Amino acid sequence: MAELVPIESADDPRLADYRDLRDVQLRKSLEVEHGLFLAEGEKVVRRAVEGGFPVRSFLMAPRWLDGLADVLATTDAPCFVLSEALAEEVTGFHVHRGALASLVRLPLPSVAEVLQGARSVVVLEDVVDHTNVGAIFRSAAALGFDAALLAPRAADPFYRRAIKVGMGAVFTLPWTRLPDWYDALPSLTEAGFTTVALTLADDAQPIEDAVAGIDKVALVLGSEGHGLSERWQRAADRRAIIPMAPGIDSLNVAAASAVACYVTARR
Amino acid sequence: MAELVPIESADDPRLADYRDLRDVQLRKSLEVEHGLFLAEGEKVVRRAVEGGFPVRSFLMAPRWLDGLADVLATTDAPCFVLSEALAEEVTGFHVHRGALASLVRLPLPSVAEVLQGARSVVVLEDVVDHTNVGAIFRSAAALGFDAALLAPRAADPFYRRAIKVGMGAVFTLPWTRLPDWYDALPSLTEAGFTTVALTLADDAQPIEDAVAGIDKVALVLGSEGHGLSERWQRAADRRAIIPMAPGIDSLNVAAASAVACYVTARR
Repeated sequence: MAELVPIESADDPRLADYRDLRDVQLRKSLEVEHGLFLAEGEKVVRRAVEGGFPVRSFLMAPRWLDGLADVLATTDAPCFVLSEALAEEVTGFHVHRGALASLVRLPLPSVAEVLQGARSVVVLEDVVDHTNVGAIFRSAAALGFDAALLAPRAADPFYRRAIKVGMGAVFTLPWTRLPDWYDALPSLTEAGFTTVALTLADDAQPIEDAVAGIDKVALVLGSEGHGLSERWQRAADRRAIIPMAPGIDSLNVAAASAVACYVTARR
Repeated sequence: MAELVPIESADDPRLADYRDLRDVQLRKSLEVEHGLFLAEGEKVVRRAVEGGFPVRSFLMAPRWLDGLADVLATTDAPCFVLSEALAEEVTGFHVHRGALASLVRLPLPSVAEVLQGARSVVVLEDVVDHTNVGAIFRSAAALGFDAALLAPRAADPFYRRAIKVGMGAVFTLPWTRLPDWYDALPSLTEAGFTTVALTLADDAQPIEDAVAGIDKVALVLGSEGHGLSERWQRAADRRAIIPMAPGIDSLNVAAASAVACYVTARR
C-alpha cells in the first residue's frame, strides 16, 4: 500500500519530479536525466502501473484517492496528498484530471525484440510534435498495429502530453528507437518487412493498392511540415498516397496516419 | 489595391478587430457581434479572400507584403503594417505565420442549399473543440465529402483556430448550422439521406458494411467526451463502428472522422 504523505508547502523538496510541467525544455532534460516520466489522469495513471512501470511516487488531491485505491494498493511508493491550489502551484497548471504519477523509464527493447511476431509496424521519421506522436500511437494500437519504431529525432512518446493524447497506448504497444537513421528502412526490408512510405511523391500509388497482399508491412510516416526525408522516400520499397479531392494538398499527420493504419491493418 | 497604413502604436483604435486573440470568450462575442472572423497565415488569408469573403482589413509585418501582393491588389481594404513586436502587443501572441486578415461573415446558406447535389455529408453534433471541428472539415474536404452540417452547439468553424487547423477548408466546403437539434436527423432522412451514426452502441455494425451501397449518406459524429446524444443515436437510420483492437475503447474524434470519411467516400 502506498504511503500517504500530506504536503503543506509547494516548496517541499520531495515534489521535485512534478515541478513546472509547462516548461517543455526543462521537463525534457529533467525527465531523461532522472529516467522518469509522468502519467496524468486516473485512466492513464492506472494504465501506466498496469503496464508494469515501477512507481516513484503519486501526487494528487484527496478526492482522487478513492478512485485509485486499488492502484495505490499495489506499491509502496509515496503518495503526496495536497490541495488542488497547492498542486497548481507546484506543477504550474490546473491539474483538472487530478492524479499524477511519476514512474521509472524501463530500458527500451531492441528492434529485433519489437519486431518479433509483428505483422504491421508503424515507423515514424521526424514527427517532432508530442501531440502527433501520441495520436499516432493511439490510432495504431486501436486499429490493430503490433508495434512502433521511432527515428532518432522523433518526439518522446513518454512525454506527458504524448502519453495523455495517446491514452496510454505507449504502455501497451511495443516500441523502440531506431539506432540508425540512414539505414533504418533497408534494415527493415532485410528483416522481411515491405516498407511503405506515405508521401506525396509522383510515383506514389493509392495506399490500398500499395499494401494489398503484403504479409509484413512497415508503414512509414514523416513529419507534417516537410513529410519524409528524400533518403527515406527513396529507401522505401513502395511509396503510397491517400487519394484526395482535387485541389486539396494534404491531410494532417494524425488524420493521415489513422486512415493509413486502418487500410493497412485490413489489407 | 489595399491601402497600406503604417501603425505606430498598439493602442491605435483601428486595430480593434485584432485585439487579445488568446481570449477565447472575448473573441467569440466580439466576432459574432461584429460579424467578422480572422484568418491567420499567408495560405489561409489567401484562401479566405479567394473564397469570396469581403475583407475588412489586413494586419501584417512588412516582410509579408510581397508574398500577399496579389491578394492585396484585389481589395480597397486597409492593410495595417507594423513591427512584429507591435503585432504581438496587439494580438497577445507571437504571430509567427505573419499575416492576419479580418473578413466579413456572409449569411449562412439554408440546409436545402447545402444539400443540393450533395452525396456525402458530415454532420457534427456537439463537437465543441475548435481544433476538432477544423480537423474534421479538413479531412472531410480532402477525402471527397460534399458538405457539412453543424448542430446548434457545435463549435464555430469560423473561429481562428478552427480555420487554421482546417487549412481553410471551411471556405470551400459548403456548410451551415442545423436550425433544430431534435429533428435534425429525421429531416435528413426525409431529404433522401441515410443517416449513419458513428457510435460504440451494441448494435453498431462495421462502418464499411453500414455504408455499403448507399447513395446519399449523412455521416453523423458526436463529441469526443460523450459521443452522440441518445436522441441522435436512436434517430439515426444506421449505427456504425470502426472495428478496433481488443481492449481499446476508442479513437479520438479527428482520427475516427478521418477513417469514417475515407471509408464512406469510397463506398
